[in-house]
Amino acid sequence: MERIEIPAREARAWRLKAGASFRVIDMEGLQVGDLWAFNEADPGEYHNAPHTRVECGRLFPHVGESFWSNRRRPILTLVADDSPGVHDMLMAACDPERFVRLGHVGPHASCQENLLGALARERVAGLVVPQPINLFMNTPVDGAGDIEQGAPYTKAGDSVTLRAELDVLLVLSACPQDIVRTNAGDPTGLAVELGVGT
Amino acid sequence: MERIEIPAREARAWRLKAGASFRVIDMEGLQVGDLWAFNEADPGEYHNAPHTRVECGRLFPHVGESFWSNRRRPILTLVADDSPGVHDMLMAACDPERFVRLGHVGPHASCQENLLGALARERVAGLVVPQPINLFMNTPVDGAGDIEQGAPYTKAGDSVTLRAELDVLLVLSACPQDIVRTNAGDPTGLAVELGVGT
Repeated sequence: MERIEIPAREARAWRLKAGASFRVIDMEGLQVGDLWAFNEADPGEYHNAPHTRVECGRLFPHVGESFWSNRRRPILTLVADDSPGVHDMLMAACDPERFVRLGHVGPHASCQENLLGALARERVAGLVVPQPINLFMNTPVDGAGDIEQGAPYTKAGDSVTLRAELDVLLVLSACPQDIVRTNAGDPTGLAVELGVGT
Repeated sequence: MERIEIPAREARAWRLKAGASFRVIDMEGLQVGDLWAFNEADPGEYHNAPHTRVECGRLFPHVGESFWSNRRRPILTLVADDSPGVHDMLMAACDPERFVRLGHVGPHASCQENLLGALARERVAGLVVPQPINLFMNTPVDGAGDIEQGAPYTKAGDSVTLRAELDVLLVLSACPQDIVRTNAGDPTGLAVELGVGT
């Protein structure tokens, strides 16, 4: 079993064949991971939250349901959820302008820059920044459509397991947000285990 | 005042300078309009629902709030809502594969093909199909995150008014969905009035 350690505020990319699974682990708890999936053979096909919502009829898939690509094909499946089951697929990745608007002065790591850096290291041109799958992110929506930005509910060791439905290039960013409550104010690291059985 | 008629199941594109407003009118009622906004000078900047949700803290902006681009800048503002105020920014545009999956045999118009055709006529290469602003679309979300696909609440003549915050290329598709309840089973036309006062 291969294991990828993702330090706090950083991202890693890896490739996976269709049918293979991986587990994303919140090492210390209270940490969000922004996950993106691209078709390895053609990164113009990628996981697209608007299609997943239509095909599942939900804000986030149930265990056993798939995440769908912008070409309306399953690209990942949620195989197991060993966490409180609270995730987000509504909010944009943080980006440099997000931190400017929050009053931060000077450089700040962001999930968008992490994604683009990881894609560049894989020699993939990132033309689009899709809506991420924000694992462990807590954004309850009330009946008026207002979205709260809460701290995660995860404890150390909580995880989700996903299976690739296409040959994919995956990127996971340990979210560097330390101003609002996304990571309870203290970004920490994630781990990915490849070759996990399902 | 210039008026653009959009026949049922079709789309039209138009350009608007920053500061100018337009009104989208549901001519007969019960009709959804899929709206996209691109920066006219660089269509790689476009309205991006995930950024709008973060900046507004809501599933859809209130009157007076803006729609944000993928570069986290206001691109449109919701100036007035003379409709029941129910709109969607969760669901992907219908596309040919959507109708295949709904059991339709043979060609079927779709908002995605309408967008790409309208962009081609404007000689703009449509690399990305962003999440549309689905005006008048009724997709209530319950406390479990389940999304219902309801018929619109609009009556003939209901409208929304928006203002461009950048020089924009706009595309509006009168949604051709006639299988699920998006348009109450009977797609009809829309109109756009340009040069409306705000």
